[in-house]
Amino acid sequence: MKALVYVTLKPSVLDPQGKAIHHSTELLGFTNLADIRQGKYFEIAFSEGVSESDAQTAAEAIAKDVLANPVIEDYRVEIAQ
Amino acid sequence: MKALVYVTLKPSVLDPQGKAIHHSTELLGFTNLADIRQGKYFEIAFSEGVSESDAQTAAEAIAKDVLANPVIEDYRVEIAQ
Repeated sequence: MKALVYVTLKPSVLDPQGKAIHHSTELLGFTNLADIRQGKYFEIAFSEGVSESDAQTAAEAIAKDVLANPVIEDYRVEIAQ
Repeated sequence: MKALVYVTLKPSVLDPQGKAIHHSTELLGFTNLADIRQGKYFEIAFSEGVSESDAQTAAEAIAKDVLANPVIEDYRVEIAQ
């Protein structure tokens, strides 16, 4: 069983790296973009026999305590088979 | 319209950052994890009036040319409303 964790900057937080990527794409001729924002993505693989609810609980705790900074970032956890 | 781009290291490529996170989670008492791998996640917002097929084409090109290094990374593009 796998948990997928998406970590993104809160909408009110500036994203200079995304702005730099947006600028690069404009120089390459992609002029129909409004914005690009960068985030992080994690795949957590659980050992055999871990239940879906245990995986969800553990992944939420890991996302909150280790992967994201809740002051400036939001996170979302999905369970995949 | 938004395109979501997920960039992950190819399975054969070592992920030392993921290994470090895995080690941290073990120290915190999460012992039922097999592996953690880190990737990148991008949200590309398109201007008003861009069609879904144009957005898909542009997002694929940006993912391949700017966001991912196809030698060591895989990418996946999803279109969201």
